[in-house]
Amino acid sequence: MRPLARLASLRSPVAGQAFKSTLSTRAVASRTSWTPAPIPRISSTSLRSFSLSTSHHRFQVYVKKQNTKMTSTATTLKGQPLDKGALESMLRRRMFFAPSFDIYGGVAGLYDYGPPGCALQANIIDIWRKHFVLEEDMLEVDCTALTPHDVLKTSGHVDKFADWMCKDPKNGDILRADHFVEDVLEARLKGDKEARGQKVEDKEEDPKRKKKKAKGTEAVKLEDAVVKEYEEILAQIDNYNGEQLGELIKKYDLKNPATGVQPEPPVAFNLMFQTAIGPSGNLAGYMRPETAQGQFLNFAKLLEYNAGNMPFASASIGKSYRNEIAPRGGLLRVREFLMAEIEHFVDPAGHKKHERFHEVADIELALLDRNVQLSGQTTVTKMTIGEAVKQKIVDNETLGYFLARIHLFLKKIGVDQSKIRFRQHMGNEMAHYACDCWDAELLTSSGWVECVGCADRSAYDLTVHAKKTGAPLVVRETLETPEIVEKWEPEINSKKFGPTFRKDAKTVEAAILALPQEELAKLAEELKTNGKIVVDVPGVGDGKVEVSKDLVAIEWKKHTINIREYTPNVIEPSFGIGRILYSLLEHNYWVREGDEARGVISFPPAVAPVKVLIVPISSKAEFAPHVRRLSQKLRSVGISSRVDDSSASIGRRYARNDELGTPFGLTIDFQTLQDGTFTLRERDSTRQVRAEEEKIVDAIKALVEGSKTWQDVESELPIFEGQELEIRPAEN
Amino acid sequence: MRPLARLASLRSPVAGQAFKSTLSTRAVASRTSWTPAPIPRISSTSLRSFSLSTSHHRFQVYVKKQNTKMTSTATTLKGQPLDKGALESMLRRRMFFAPSFDIYGGVAGLYDYGPPGCALQANIIDIWRKHFVLEEDMLEVDCTALTPHDVLKTSGHVDKFADWMCKDPKNGDILRADHFVEDVLEARLKGDKEARGQKVEDKEEDPKRKKKKAKGTEAVKLEDAVVKEYEEILAQIDNYNGEQLGELIKKYDLKNPATGVQPEPPVAFNLMFQTAIGPSGNLAGYMRPETAQGQFLNFAKLLEYNAGNMPFASASIGKSYRNEIAPRGGLLRVREFLMAEIEHFVDPAGHKKHERFHEVADIELALLDRNVQLSGQTTVTKMTIGEAVKQKIVDNETLGYFLARIHLFLKKIGVDQSKIRFRQHMGNEMAHYACDCWDAELLTSSGWVECVGCADRSAYDLTVHAKKTGAPLVVRETLETPEIVEKWEPEINSKKFGPTFRKDAKTVEAAILALPQEELAKLAEELKTNGKIVVDVPGVGDGKVEVSKDLVAIEWKKHTINIREYTPNVIEPSFGIGRILYSLLEHNYWVREGDEARGVISFPPAVAPVKVLIVPISSKAEFAPHVRRLSQKLRSVGISSRVDDSSASIGRRYARNDELGTPFGLTIDFQTLQDGTFTLRERDSTRQVRAEEEKIVDAIKALVEGSKTWQDVESELPIFEGQELEIRPAEN
Repeated sequence: MRPLARLASLRSPVAGQAFKSTLSTRAVASRTSWTPAPIPRISSTSLRSFSLSTSHHRFQVYVKKQNTKMTSTATTLKGQPLDKGALESMLRRRMFFAPSFDIYGGVAGLYDYGPPGCALQANIIDIWRKHFVLEEDMLEVDCTALTPHDVLKTSGHVDKFADWMCKDPKNGDILRADHFVEDVLEARLKGDKEARGQKVEDKEEDPKRKKKKAKGTEAVKLEDAVVKEYEEILAQIDNYNGEQLGELIKKYDLKNPATGVQPEPPVAFNLMFQTAIGPSGNLAGYMRPETAQGQFLNFAKLLEYNAGNMPFASASIGKSYRNEIAPRGGLLRVREFLMAEIEHFVDPAGHKKHERFHEVADIELALLDRNVQLSGQTTVTKMTIGEAVKQKIVDNETLGYFLARIHLFLKKIGVDQSKIRFRQHMGNEMAHYACDCWDAELLTSSGWVECVGCADRSAYDLTVHAKKTGAPLVVRETLETPEIVEKWEPEINSKKFGPTFRKDAKTVEAAILALPQEELAKLAEELKTNGKIVVDVPGVGDGKVEVSKDLVAIEWKKHTINIREYTPNVIEPSFGIGRILYSLLEHNYWVREGDEARGVISFPPAVAPVKVLIVPISSKAEFAPHVRRLSQKLRSVGISSRVDDSSASIGRRYARNDELGTPFGLTIDFQTLQDGTFTLRERDSTRQVRAEEEKIVDAIKALVEGSKTWQDVESELPIFEGQELEIRPAEN
Repeated sequence: MRPLARLASLRSPVAGQAFKSTLSTRAVASRTSWTPAPIPRISSTSLRSFSLSTSHHRFQVYVKKQNTKMTSTATTLKGQPLDKGALESMLRRRMFFAPSFDIYGGVAGLYDYGPPGCALQANIIDIWRKHFVLEEDMLEVDCTALTPHDVLKTSGHVDKFADWMCKDPKNGDILRADHFVEDVLEARLKGDKEARGQKVEDKEEDPKRKKKKAKGTEAVKLEDAVVKEYEEILAQIDNYNGEQLGELIKKYDLKNPATGVQPEPPVAFNLMFQTAIGPSGNLAGYMRPETAQGQFLNFAKLLEYNAGNMPFASASIGKSYRNEIAPRGGLLRVREFLMAEIEHFVDPAGHKKHERFHEVADIELALLDRNVQLSGQTTVTKMTIGEAVKQKIVDNETLGYFLARIHLFLKKIGVDQSKIRFRQHMGNEMAHYACDCWDAELLTSSGWVECVGCADRSAYDLTVHAKKTGAPLVVRETLETPEIVEKWEPEINSKKFGPTFRKDAKTVEAAILALPQEELAKLAEELKTNGKIVVDVPGVGDGKVEVSKDLVAIEWKKHTINIREYTPNVIEPSFGIGRILYSLLEHNYWVREGDEARGVISFPPAVAPVKVLIVPISSKAEFAPHVRRLSQKLRSVGISSRVDDSSASIGRRYARNDELGTPFGLTIDFQTLQDGTFTLRERDSTRQVRAEEEKIVDAIKALVEGSKTWQDVESELPIFEGQELEIRPAEN
């Protein structure tokens, strides 16, 4: 599998405008202290950071280019080297996921979840909903994915949510420009190494890609200076815009290995799936690229639903769509994916304090702040979130609160604690309006993967939609101590004003009402002295209009302001559920010592697709009633089970379910028929206890709910030894 | 609100081919015994019955045209006349749902669910998943909504999933042809009534539509014969194809009231949202119009996942998309909607028995079978499903099992038992391959609404996809008693055959292997007698090829067949979640006696968006710890609550939550501060009990889980009387 560090994320228009200076800053950094970090990263859950650069718009990557030549150093849950091929083959065999439309040849970037993947996803979502929505009384909404053009025009997606692509003039292939440049230069560097007789590290890749790339690899020695140039380009491949990528293609005469010709210059390709709504074809629409917009558009209704109380959060779980040019990386980069997003609306005036911050202040996070990154390091600092906010490393309490809550959520679903870090966006990665932004990244065989973004987006989104539509997306707050305001106020005598100025009346009135305070003060004086004033009204007469005192009065007036109106800021935690799900699979996978074919996924019971495997030791009819009763009983206490009454040995049946991550096994054996006792097996230790039905069911319930550990159960119920002997390596 | 009886459903190609005869059958029926039924119907959850008729394809309606002139006779849960306007205003005020993109002017047929709608939907889905997926060990999958063209071409949607539309040449308006004809004729009949001085019944409609239609209504008297003609056309409006609708428009010179001109002839409009997948734009795709196809395509993998065992069912919950020409009817006809579909795969050889049928055999359903409908009646028959299958009214046990299970599901979520019926499709409504099909219809203010379809689709879907792709979408079953087959078999001597016939060898071999048994028998004899045979091989030499016995042998051979291969049939229950949700709102709505402004939605606790309202009687600081502790405690036992600590009176706060359907209210009052007791209020009766915290929480838990009724609780805990007095009509 090739490293995916340069998978794109989105950037803000203004971050994009700062693009050139950013680029040069980085170039300097890389020549001095900045060194490539050892592990690549995948970004792009965050949907918001797109950039504008030169005349074309660019969907730009914000990662530092890191070493892409490394082989995977990923490990299993037990610290064994991760055999990604074995894991993926197991995941497909057990139908965690499968390419969509497989029998029709499939479509890149589209995957279906099979039964265990689907249950795993449902459990993650269920925990997410409890952890965030219910725990914090968030207002969950379900908005449509179909979105009309105007909405995404306002949000900036229509103009800027794009990648650069090149067309091969010979065969019409569409290449993603940055990937193309990178692939060809990497192939040349590889050829150079071969020519120099150096060992070329084999990257894990899917065979199709390898074959295609192999075409371009020839053992040709390059000059040392050229090698250095190529390496420098690769180190900052994510920072080139379309024009610059086009220049590189020309300068180095980069050719598509498939055809041997140079592709056409890069053009911007919008990543949204477009469609037409309604029969006329006139209403352009898109499949939403994120779930956030629906929440912003409903802001006023949600505020009203919340009885006007601030702060509050909305939340949404739903599919989003991105028409990737050439998806790679399995579940990590797909064209249709499940997101869970929260928009926490907060008054910017209160320093974004959070009333429950004290509950999480002592939680320790692994932080990779922007200063460390700017110094070329990737060393994380373990620090309590309380300390991080105090030191201003994290901008404010609300943002800090959500980082800690995200951490707790990831921990709860079983993410490996040693494989989480929170990475802060650097200044040039962030949207201009954003105050601060952190990604929760999970370490996988593809490097650090951005799985959750958490940004303080200020008042940007509500402001642009309010401006476009005129809808008052604001909070009106009754002031405890009313504010007194005194100012000059012109007052028009409507009765006379209209007849006097006729068709120009509105224009003249508007000009007067728009006058600044200092001008009004002057004119009030003039009106008193001369009984008339002269006002500049471009377009009316000669641009000067005389207004007499019977038509207008200008007075110093006192106002009591009881209402404060403001646009809330928004803190946005945004979860890529598919990426979290895939990372979870890798984090919980391991193989039984001494038998590499025996994979296990040690899901915590709460997320495990199925909680209990029921295994009758024999297919004799006497066993059937026990199986039915147990299933029924477990179901009635809300625990999912599956029966395996196949003729395979008990050991083989357990091994099959270890691969599915089923935490508990319930065996019905001949002793059951005599005394009504069952054995309960724990997946990870393969240890067993034996007891009567009620005790066993109670134990399972406590284990699944998390109120007891397996150690507790072993201390309460008699240990059973025997059957597990049947699991011999030879059987698997 | 206008009746929606003619909202379209889909029909099979062959049902469409039988279209003309069907039409005439109906015409006869309507002239003799068939009388319009009193209540209109809405169909179209079932995605599968599209029809082909004449040269154009048509997305055809299968309902008998019924009386569309009636006013709503809908009633509330308590039998009061339903004030639909009041209900809808309440639902919007409480944000059950809202038009999507409202601040941008909205898009017809797109709705967002607000917090209570979203929670209601999540609860319905949760119960659905437990009731179907977990209870029956179904294999749930989550497939992409993006679907490539080829898949939907094979399924028939590309060619036949269409409606007829007309364009207005003057203003470019697109009109749905059947609706247009209907609207104009209805307006003329209304004008006629006015001219005759008859009372015109006012239909409930949204004001916009009314205004538009009013334009076309002029008080012009028609001849009696014309009135009769119009009425006959309206009675069968759903049965006209595009050409016929075009003829009606010409014949009666129907003009668009908005422009005064006749629209162009109807053309077919495909109802799928089209898009392009990938950057080249060459891979056409659609947003799926149903979730079923993904399940069919994964059949082979699912069968393997299920260890080859039959029968089994897959299930899927997800959004589907239909580009309606002119959506009307709120949540009942939308362009993006949530479906839940089951595909139960069964061996057709076993008479489609179901092993759990005995569990449901005694359940009584309200059936409206096809014979009753053909006789022009809509009288339902109450009958146990056991009896219905026995009498062959319902085709088979598996179909019957699911009808009963659907009934139990609808009952569980709180559908009014007096407002469900199961209506059988008539022969001409069904796809040619379908054996039987029943819709669960719910009675609403828009008439009988098709909310669940349940069809026996035979082997159609798997067969067409297997034929198109070559994938073996079959079950291979080891026969218990192997079958012995004896037959003539030619055996080619490959070593000599190639050199003898050279380039023609393959062709000659194929010709021999394709020979029928009787021919082979004859040739075997010939080979024995003459030592050679002459075979017809068109295109080789003169079309006759001589083959000697050293090149081929033909022998009578015995084979033992151990494997039986078959394509499973599929029973498909298909749920339109949005329609069920809307019907549920109507079924559970009522108003408190004596105060029409006090709406209540009596959701069963399991589906209620929020289970408990926590109401501190005062905003004093002493109350806060109680509020926090109670919320926390309820959450820990999995029960969602909401706090209303506003300054409104207790009565007003309860009234607000009655509208949200919150079943229980927990009041913290001054007595709580002294003795730690709380009052618990039941929404429907407004009765209260008072007890200490633990007893109250236990009672709530039992009530929500359904293990106790309110009567049980009243018999166990002391009745409390007092606070409810605060709810005075004047306060609301």
